[in-house]
Amino acid sequence: MAEQGVLVGIDLGGTNVRAGVVSQSGELLHWEEQPIEAQRGPESGLATIAVLVENVVEQAHQPVLSLGIGSTGPLDRERGCIQNPYTLPGWEDVDIVTPLRERFNVPVALENDADAAALGEAWAGAGRGAASIVMLTIGTGVGFAWIRNGEIHRGVGGEHPEGGHILIDPAGPECYCGARGCLESLVAGPAIARFAQQAASGKRSPFLESAAEAIEAIEARHVFEGARQGDPACLELVDQTAVHIARGLASIMMMILPEVIVLTGGVLRSYGLMEERIRTELERVDVIIPARQVKLQLSQTGQQAGILGAARAAQLLLQEAL
Amino acid sequence: MAEQGVLVGIDLGGTNVRAGVVSQSGELLHWEEQPIEAQRGPESGLATIAVLVENVVEQAHQPVLSLGIGSTGPLDRERGCIQNPYTLPGWEDVDIVTPLRERFNVPVALENDADAAALGEAWAGAGRGAASIVMLTIGTGVGFAWIRNGEIHRGVGGEHPEGGHILIDPAGPECYCGARGCLESLVAGPAIARFAQQAASGKRSPFLESAAEAIEAIEARHVFEGARQGDPACLELVDQTAVHIARGLASIMMMILPEVIVLTGGVLRSYGLMEERIRTELERVDVIIPARQVKLQLSQTGQQAGILGAARAAQLLLQEAL
Repeated sequence: MAEQGVLVGIDLGGTNVRAGVVSQSGELLHWEEQPIEAQRGPESGLATIAVLVENVVEQAHQPVLSLGIGSTGPLDRERGCIQNPYTLPGWEDVDIVTPLRERFNVPVALENDADAAALGEAWAGAGRGAASIVMLTIGTGVGFAWIRNGEIHRGVGGEHPEGGHILIDPAGPECYCGARGCLESLVAGPAIARFAQQAASGKRSPFLESAAEAIEAIEARHVFEGARQGDPACLELVDQTAVHIARGLASIMMMILPEVIVLTGGVLRSYGLMEERIRTELERVDVIIPARQVKLQLSQTGQQAGILGAARAAQLLLQEAL
Repeated sequence: MAEQGVLVGIDLGGTNVRAGVVSQSGELLHWEEQPIEAQRGPESGLATIAVLVENVVEQAHQPVLSLGIGSTGPLDRERGCIQNPYTLPGWEDVDIVTPLRERFNVPVALENDADAAALGEAWAGAGRGAASIVMLTIGTGVGFAWIRNGEIHRGVGGEHPEGGHILIDPAGPECYCGARGCLESLVAGPAIARFAQQAASGKRSPFLESAAEAIEAIEARHVFEGARQGDPACLELVDQTAVHIARGLASIMMMILPEVIVLTGGVLRSYGLMEERIRTELERVDVIIPARQVKLQLSQTGQQAGILGAARAAQLLLQEAL
């Protein structure tokens, strides 16, 4: 393959869209960001993306070989469409692949954002060199993706599995996934916020009661802040979150037993507060599986994982075509 | 590859060992069974196996190409050793591969029995033609294996994952896996028996109280029998088991989303009593993943799955060597 030429990765979220040019060896050369303003409709959004890509490509001074998009889902990968009225209001059945392919005249790949981020981390981050990498993103939701021998694990019909919704506690909160007490319902940011709001309503945490202007305004970050300041209720919530995360990791290990689990997302910015408890819990299941051999690592590409992984998907598309 | 020649599959359990000759297209031509009498020690056991293999090979009237063993674990596949003092008392660090290779002068493969059974079912049973098959065996324990594109899914270091121990309910019973409320602790035969014994002790089931000569003698099969006869406590236990199994299947779908899940094992001989409840529970999670697209099927090779899969492992070993 010619050394010359770059890949373009696009990371499309509910709030912002980022695009970057990436070398064929996984180096992010330049990137830019724009608000996507989804409520203005897909046409306006597609125009924003096209201009953003033109800007970053201009900086590259090299031909673009292919282009990849990692997008907040659900998606229809086969048809290259975004089907996401949830975090991109009004974006139903939006063909994002065709306009980009026509405008830039290169192959265009579309992947789920969790899959793209995991591809990026496996290619150029904490998963480099490992044959089996799970990436768990704990933020507003819980994203799950698994890269095996450099390829995204896909489910039946090419569908994206949702390992963020494995069962943790059937006595837990209801989730839109149809179950009670899945991982997301217990450890995602909004779940932690809900537990914190209950603690504040129940007058169990002086810290949380005064942390925000109203009880409904209490967020997960307040809990971690309170724990750092020694608030007992916050420490308990952090401990509970750590135990739930450890239980999720244990089930991932029981079923998949990957080499590396890469941890990322807003909630895991406070991983330091939870790490000891998570590791202690996991030691308990190092009995019938070698849990200690599974490396737990924080993301190394951070917010760039999505751009890098989208570029990697673009590269894989070229290789498939060969 | 020459059409001539057969494969030999050996299925080594804690009680019996079976061996069979299998055609290269997955047809079981002939098989025999012997008690393994593990307590007499590995030397005696290995001799039993050798004689058994000689007997079945004699019936084949064709050269043996390779030989595979599916054995109750833990195993050390790399070194070809059985490390199983649990269900094969005294069998620690027993090299089963070398003596068979020397005696029959063909390549010998060693696999975990759950993996072998899944290979068999994928090759010649309910998983035929599917690219991603999970096999769940619910009996004395809960076995889990996953065949993807014809290959056994292995964990870090080549270790066998233990998906039978994914978390279902942290308020559940303690398990030797280190966790509370894993799938095996709730739905394996001994777990159902324990719940039934509690029901009988608590005078909650006239049927169970008189089902066996003593409360400790009540087994899982009594529960299914009682349910068939309409005993309310047994019906409740069967319902509870179905819900736990469905929750386990839901987590498998969330994480892996295979094409087919093959169900087998003693407890699932009563699948008919639980099927409706299992399917109803699973419909609830057909929201963010296409759960309905995952086929639930009973094993088609039944007790032959182990022999067939061991023979398939033997065949794969030959193909690797090419």
